Amino acid sequence: MIKGIFLVILCISFHSVGFAGQHQVKQDLFDTVKVTAYGITPNSRANAVPAIQRALKVCKLKKNPLLFFPKGRYDLWPQHAIEKVYYESNTSDNNPKRNGILLEGQSNLTIDGNDAAFIYHNRMQPITVEKSTNILIKNLNIDWDIPLTAQARVIDTTATYITIMLDEKQYPYEIDAGKLSFIGEGWKSGVKMVMEYEYDSHLIAAGTGDDHALGKGWQNYRAEKLQNGTLRLYHSFKRRPKPGNVLIFRHSDRDHAGIFITESKNIKIEHLNLYHCAGLGILSQFSENLSFMKVNIIPNSKKGRYFSGHDDGMHFSSCKGQILVDNCKYEGLMDDPINVHGIYVKVIKKLGTNQLLCRFMERMSVGMVWARKGDHIGFTDNASLKTLGKASVTAFKQISTTDFEITLTTAIPIYVKEGLGLENLTWTPSATIRNSTFESCRARGILVTTPKDVLIENNIFRSSGSAILIAGDVNSWYESGAVSNVVIKGNTFLAPVLTSNYQFSEAIISIFPEIPIMNQSTPTYHRNIQIINNNFNPYDYPILFAQSVQGLIFENNTLTRSYDFSPFHKRKVGFSLIGCKAVEIRNNKIDQNLLGKNISIQHMQKSDVSLIQPELYFDK
Amino acid sequence: MIKGIFLVILCISFHSVGFAGQHQVKQDLFDTVKVTAYGITPNSRANAVPAIQRALKVCKLKKNPLLFFPKGRYDLWPQHAIEKVYYESNTSDNNPKRNGILLEGQSNLTIDGNDAAFIYHNRMQPITVEKSTNILIKNLNIDWDIPLTAQARVIDTTATYITIMLDEKQYPYEIDAGKLSFIGEGWKSGVKMVMEYEYDSHLIAAGTGDDHALGKGWQNYRAEKLQNGTLRLYHSFKRRPKPGNVLIFRHSDRDHAGIFITESKNIKIEHLNLYHCAGLGILSQFSENLSFMKVNIIPNSKKGRYFSGHDDGMHFSSCKGQILVDNCKYEGLMDDPINVHGIYVKVIKKLGTNQLLCRFMERMSVGMVWARKGDHIGFTDNASLKTLGKASVTAFKQISTTDFEITLTTAIPIYVKEGLGLENLTWTPSATIRNSTFESCRARGILVTTPKDVLIENNIFRSSGSAILIAGDVNSWYESGAVSNVVIKGNTFLAPVLTSNYQFSEAIISIFPEIPIMNQSTPTYHRNIQIINNNFNPYDYPILFAQSVQGLIFENNTLTRSYDFSPFHKRKVGFSLIGCKAVEIRNNKIDQNLLGKNISIQHMQKSDVSLIQPELYFDK
Repeated sequence: MIKGIFLVILCISFHSVGFAGQHQVKQDLFDTVKVTAYGITPNSRANAVPAIQRALKVCKLKKNPLLFFPKGRYDLWPQHAIEKVYYESNTSDNNPKRNGILLEGQSNLTIDGNDAAFIYHNRMQPITVEKSTNILIKNLNIDWDIPLTAQARVIDTTATYITIMLDEKQYPYEIDAGKLSFIGEGWKSGVKMVMEYEYDSHLIAAGTGDDHALGKGWQNYRAEKLQNGTLRLYHSFKRRPKPGNVLIFRHSDRDHAGIFITESKNIKIEHLNLYHCAGLGILSQFSENLSFMKVNIIPNSKKGRYFSGHDDGMHFSSCKGQILVDNCKYEGLMDDPINVHGIYVKVIKKLGTNQLLCRFMERMSVGMVWARKGDHIGFTDNASLKTLGKASVTAFKQISTTDFEITLTTAIPIYVKEGLGLENLTWTPSATIRNSTFESCRARGILVTTPKDVLIENNIFRSSGSAILIAGDVNSWYESGAVSNVVIKGNTFLAPVLTSNYQFSEAIISIFPEIPIMNQSTPTYHRNIQIINNNFNPYDYPILFAQSVQGLIFENNTLTRSYDFSPFHKRKVGFSLIGCKAVEIRNNKIDQNLLGKNISIQHMQKSDVSLIQPELYFDK
Repeated sequence: MIKGIFLVILCISFHSVGFAGQHQVKQDLFDTVKVTAYGITPNSRANAVPAIQRALKVCKLKKNPLLFFPKGRYDLWPQHAIEKVYYESNTSDNNPKRNGILLEGQSNLTIDGNDAAFIYHNRMQPITVEKSTNILIKNLNIDWDIPLTAQARVIDTTATYITIMLDEKQYPYEIDAGKLSFIGEGWKSGVKMVMEYEYDSHLIAAGTGDDHALGKGWQNYRAEKLQNGTLRLYHSFKRRPKPGNVLIFRHSDRDHAGIFITESKNIKIEHLNLYHCAGLGILSQFSENLSFMKVNIIPNSKKGRYFSGHDDGMHFSSCKGQILVDNCKYEGLMDDPINVHGIYVKVIKKLGTNQLLCRFMERMSVGMVWARKGDHIGFTDNASLKTLGKASVTAFKQISTTDFEITLTTAIPIYVKEGLGLENLTWTPSATIRNSTFESCRARGILVTTPKDVLIENNIFRSSGSAILIAGDVNSWYESGAVSNVVIKGNTFLAPVLTSNYQFSEAIISIFPEIPIMNQSTPTYHRNIQIINNNFNPYDYPILFAQSVQGLIFENNTLTRSYDFSPFHKRKVGFSLIGCKAVEIRNNKIDQNLLGKNISIQHMQKSDVSLIQPELYFDK
């Protein structure tokens, strides 16, 4: 898929693949800029930020610059970091953002970290790629000594307290009026949420997830430090964690991505470990052609950590061209590993025959240049989610961080009223996600809503919630849009999938657009979803939940029951179909002990389902 | 002394004494600027630097600004700190300096910290006062969580190793190739020197000092971390510290003062605890009228620390007007608590009839504007230290950090040759140091060399080296100049004084100008030193060492032998007199068991000493 866009380059040295843009380059044509020539020594603990800035300026003067880091540890501090205001999708707008390494208007640049450790301090954005083209970033490790998430080991629990062991060096804390506050290199923050990970399996403890590992009302604890250095949390917790397990304390805002890619094109990241960050892991927005090979967003096991990034892993908001995720791994994230979506905005009022005042509705996704001249947009009915029509943009004008004016080439259709959704159809990518591993993270595995081709292939899932969510809504998260060709094949969905409750996690694969008014005449929102040749290991009922799909194929899959967990899901149905058309279920290899052999339908007819699978049956 | 310069102001509120400059102001006339109105909340751990900068800008617009800090903790980080190149006296010129709080061109400003804790990070200059007038800074505590000096407790010692316990939270470290490196918030540095403090008494262990607490060759240790978290230093140490005692690891450059006062006038500091800093404690240079009341440069005992500042306590280099030190305390410093001196420079060559090329000779004291138009200078013979003549300056021109041109109003005298010393006679202060306590610090207590009046009164000394050193030299440290009226009265010199060897520490009071050529005809360098009404508690011989003094009175002192320590000093003489004139020793109350009842003379006659003290006798 990517081949047509990225020119494959001859690899003639250990530096491996360079990045060519319009022509092929050989390794020896690289202009190597060694960062150590610009005032930093690895392992010196000194702030590397100014030296990297100087080296990047030199790179701009070269034709095919290679910024090279001799192996070792580089520390990056907010001191001297370029601060810039960025409105980042699905991120708190604490601005300006502190940019550890800022590529701005760079082209044909390769950064080779040579397996160096980049250790960041305080709240920062490790790498920012803005208005840049043909960039390859490889062989890097990004981490924090004092991260923006904390963890502790459970020593014991009683009806009135939990004793925990907290590594004060990695997770310095204070107790203020009985409450735990974590303190870092320029911040202090209270605990917002507690997760529980099993010590041996590194899985989120089954049945916890977003259902409060410590039970409802856990916030009423009183913390006390004991003589021996352990900590006691006094409260009659409604749920007690298992002694030996690891509690993750979520705290602090998600206000900087790990790697932020904006308004850029042809960006490749290879062989990179992102062990931690202060928000979304790799956030790409309004960018085109993005490739990630052997990128791991995982805990740093050398530090004994069970958490990795602060929130989502890879987040693609309003991108276009091709997205390739290959041979990547996700573990210990505090939100979905992969999200691919656009942003619905709301019509506030008509300003003229061809002009609208619009508004960003999700408070963490505002302030962006939502459309550019020439972009195609769709008008989406906010009750049925039906696309009512399309138009082209001639101008975009920002009014405030939430509001903007948009001017169209044609007159505003008569049906466009206040409250209607707008979708940008130009900034929609195709996506290939393959050969990757989705270990236990808070929430789901992959969330994808894009009208272009999507291939999810040969991945392994141990996600705590649904493995795959195909969503879309114009009323709560405002994440667009409807899919039209999704192929899910050759994946393995292991037993830990869906062992906890999370929003929209209705089955291992959950196709769940939020359509306020659903009935038999509601037009289908999604189209053409094929689930083929996958292995499922469900221990519980829900396998597939699908709402509002036209053309849904579930074929040649192997479903083998697992007994690793006790069924818990409220949905005692294997296949839940709501308002779907042209559903085909056939030729699957089904374990006779499988729990979810039933099919429920709603807002549709049995005749909408072509069922060639004698083991399965319709409910009622 | 200070009264004539500082107008005493009516104190009508808890804010106490304000600062008036030319007229009296009442408290209610202050324009209060509350720092919390400019973007910082105490105890938030956020970087307070930008908020303080904004508040100081507002202060500049007010007539009698009071910058007020609500009580609490404020963190100051290098991020956003104004960076400026400063050539600081007796300090490493790692530039630019990072200024946490920079007063530049401020006047009539009071800063009231309201007992707040200012916690600094990395290497920084907590407070800088440049080209400012009538400044009062009060009620502050300055400290570091991770200081630029480390300490450890000795667990046990054997012939082949020492086991120590190091608090990794306060003193994070790494072991590289067997050597201990301390690592902080943007730095890493190896150990340069080890001091030993007694656990209970907080005194530097007798006989250690600059004689290597771990014996010569201690640098050949190999460090290893043990399972239980302790550290073992393997080496056949020539001296073994006492188990239970505290080792201080000196590391890192002295590159930022705690408070740096330059080119300023009428600066008062009151009720301030300076618990740590990255170089000299309070460095004043080319400033006039400086007052310090209840300023403590002491270890933060709440953190269990035995060290305070990284080097000297209060350092006055080339100041003028009045210096007042009253009710201050010094402990755990890694160099002298107080230094008052000027800077000798060397003549490199004559450039014209009235122009000289000169050079700063001490590598840590360079780059300063050594003289201004109208300054009086003296020509000092570098062999005899005799002042050969005087002149006035019309111009100063910097050539490099070490070299400058100086133009005089008159022709250069014929005797001025290459190698001659120049002293700036205008930038010489009078000094009153009273009611203060000098606990155990590395090196001496007070070092003072200024031709103006000096009063050292009612102080208590437990200094590890000499209590008072009156030096002066134009060949090694290049610290000017000769004293002409020093009164040392009412002080108590306790037994711990001079329990270790340090440079120039020849007696409890050591008057030791470095005069390369001494003989009977060498003119005296210092004049008029009175040592009266003091209490001495010597356990060893040396009481007074005096070289090249015209007019030395030792009268009405009480000398009581102490048995707290074993005599160790190589000098088995109570009163060593070298090349002195008009010495009077009389009416002292002398313990019959005193060791140092002998007087030695050299380069002088017995007739130069008026001795009305039957207990004392001349050697040989």
